[in-house]
Amino acid sequence: MIDTRITGLEVVPIAFSDPPLLNAAGVHEPLALRTLVRLRAGDVVAWGEGRGDALPADVVPAVRDAVLGLDVFATSRIEAAVDAVLRRLRPELGPRARLTSFAPVEVAALDAQGRLLGKPVSELLGGALRERVDYSAYLFFKWAGHLDAEPDEWGEALDAAGVVAQARAFIDRYGFRSIKLKAGALHPDREVEALLALAEEFPGLPLRIDPNGAWSHETTLAVARRLDGVLEYLEDPVLGIDGMSRVHAETGIPLATNMCVVETAHLLPAVRTDAVQILLSDHHYWGGLRRTKDLAAICEAMGVGVSMHSNSHLGVSLAAMTHVAAAIPNLDHACDTHYPWNRADDVVVPGGIEIVDGAVAVPTGPGLGVEVDESRVEELHERYRAAGRTARDDGGYMRRRDPNFTDALPRY
Amino acid sequence: MIDTRITGLEVVPIAFSDPPLLNAAGVHEPLALRTLVRLRAGDVVAWGEGRGDALPADVVPAVRDAVLGLDVFATSRIEAAVDAVLRRLRPELGPRARLTSFAPVEVAALDAQGRLLGKPVSELLGGALRERVDYSAYLFFKWAGHLDAEPDEWGEALDAAGVVAQARAFIDRYGFRSIKLKAGALHPDREVEALLALAEEFPGLPLRIDPNGAWSHETTLAVARRLDGVLEYLEDPVLGIDGMSRVHAETGIPLATNMCVVETAHLLPAVRTDAVQILLSDHHYWGGLRRTKDLAAICEAMGVGVSMHSNSHLGVSLAAMTHVAAAIPNLDHACDTHYPWNRADDVVVPGGIEIVDGAVAVPTGPGLGVEVDESRVEELHERYRAAGRTARDDGGYMRRRDPNFTDALPRY
Ligand SMILES: [Mg+2]
Ligand SMILES: [Mg+2]
Repeated sequence: MIDTRITGLEVVPIAFSDPPLLNAAGVHEPLALRTLVRLRAGDVVAWGEGRGDALPADVVPAVRDAVLGLDVFATSRIEAAVDAVLRRLRPELGPRARLTSFAPVEVAALDAQGRLLGKPVSELLGGALRERVDYSAYLFFKWAGHLDAEPDEWGEALDAAGVVAQARAFIDRYGFRSIKLKAGALHPDREVEALLALAEEFPGLPLRIDPNGAWSHETTLAVARRLDGVLEYLEDPVLGIDGMSRVHAETGIPLATNMCVVETAHLLPAVRTDAVQILLSDHHYWGGLRRTKDLAAICEAMGVGVSMHSNSHLGVSLAAMTHVAAAIPNLDHACDTHYPWNRADDVVVPGGIEIVDGAVAVPTGPGLGVEVDESRVEELHERYRAAGRTARDDGGYMRRRDPNFTDALPRY
Repeated sequence: MIDTRITGLEVVPIAFSDPPLLNAAGVHEPLALRTLVRLRAGDVVAWGEGRGDALPADVVPAVRDAVLGLDVFATSRIEAAVDAVLRRLRPELGPRARLTSFAPVEVAALDAQGRLLGKPVSELLGGALRERVDYSAYLFFKWAGHLDAEPDEWGEALDAAGVVAQARAFIDRYGFRSIKLKAGALHPDREVEALLALAEEFPGLPLRIDPNGAWSHETTLAVARRLDGVLEYLEDPVLGIDGMSRVHAETGIPLATNMCVVETAHLLPAVRTDAVQILLSDHHYWGGLRRTKDLAAICEAMGVGVSMHSNSHLGVSLAAMTHVAAAIPNLDHACDTHYPWNRADDVVVPGGIEIVDGAVAVPTGPGLGVEVDESRVEELHERYRAAGRTARDDGGYMRRRDPNFTDALPRY
């Protein structure tokens, strides 16, 4: 029998280039932070990618001690072990934060399972139900370049023309067949203009807009009137389940969220009040790929649709997202991904994972099916160390340009 | 890499001895019917057990052709293959019946996974969260023996004294620490008397009663008054979600069901009307062990408790039930099992699985962790062939003694 126990766990915080993308919280800083987990089991090395704050350095030794010797197949037991460590060392953390810590470990465990068995992760999640997973073009209002820096390759997008040009560039390059526009950054009128320009320029493409709760109820109603019949869904126009419920009751527009339902316990209240029609799953927050599959089953039982949220990420996460998306029967919308904005710095060996015709082919190799370039990992870890930052601060960066900026919501 | 593709699938219908247990539909016949699935993958032989009507002979060749060559790890793909065959050959079947067909195949696939990897099935379901799974003493009103036969080892139980004696025998032998009484057979007054006698005789033991929808709303209210404070939960007193909802609203008693919520789609209507507080899962109906784990996650998200239903079964199912129960975090009640009534004919090699102190130790060997006696399987298959029956008919058997018996419900 093959040995499937965990013999090593290393946590590697990394930093990689991120363009100045605007959102309700401010603007993306020059470096995005992320966590890689390198797990050893039997004779394989496996990888997981998580949020930048998933596994802070001070909890890593205890997490490692807790999982060493566990079987990579016993993911619930691994979860319980990680959870126990965090409850002890970080009693202030809620369940969502603890699941965020566990997520990259779970992904690495599944990668290890697949590598040990010679099977893709999708197969371990029950089998891919589709060969390719659709992603949407994730557009942002953005500055031409970072503060004190030259304009970047994408250039400025602070009006409808800029957003349309960005969409054209994304679609030409990646073949996306649906579009999401991150909003909540400019005045809603300008954001609506951009969305309507996209609708005119790309007829037939599903469109979404996401102001991250930056709008008041009245503003949302006005936006909804102007975008009537144009949107695939409206994402988090206002904050909170009650607010979303009122918006849906008054507009009938399908609402999506990654903000007002972020734990399983939020789902039933949202369903009871018809506040959410599409849940944006995200395995980095929801505790890994198996829990994301569970979540989709829960959503199906509750009559809620499923799509997928994204933060700035690299190819290990893109592979993980693609495997789980392929194994979810009721994933009826293209997934979000920041990958085009960050892929130049990817740790995955080039050619390992690509967006073509707006979709990613489900990797068929063992585990996640991507090869990680260890020297690139080391390089990004050095950038992390040199940067000296451990937390994202979109608001602070925005205040360097606009000292009066506040991320208090709703803004409009 | 080990070969994990399915190379063989045989379906073996079997019949084994069953005592004359009374219920709302009539009385158990001398033989209970069941389906065994023998699956070959790589160099292992694996087993699954399902309902007697799970895989009728005429669908078996097509089911076999559909799954041969599939990977035993890709259980969703195996499910899709079985589902497609049934939609084609049996278009009249609903989703529940198709999941019933798939269930023993899925259990066999998991047994195969475990045997190939040298891991218990519980480990493949995320890992056992407990070492032992509690079962309840499942008591029945019963005849002394079958028609035209000598009294059986358990004797008659048609009143409180008989039921208490049965409970004593079960508890002495198996150490059960909770009791379920199957009702809906006698007048409710006599069934309540029996339950109250159990409460007096076994103080502190959780008690349940299940008339399978045999009672009217008014009868249920009267029973609920007499059993106020005595029951752990009341199981299916009336038929239908609306009826259950009314009962709960008027009594406040926790209600369990395996009758009014039998598909995922029924859950939300039941939750919206507060009709069900405990769902009785059953992997034989709900499409196997992984779907049962999913179901438990759905119940948790909906604020519904989980327990486990049983039909007459042998040790392969007891092992499967135990593995999945061990891996479900929110299984907060002892599971039902008919095993003591049927174990004398078990196909599992004696000593392989036992109820001790009211619980079954989660098997730690590969797969389901039980060894199947092939000669016993052949013997039970011969009994099936000789009996010439393919369907259960509790009502027909009851009418041989009481020609006026009808299974129309509610009866009281
Ligand atoms: Mg969002
Ligand atoms: Mg029942």
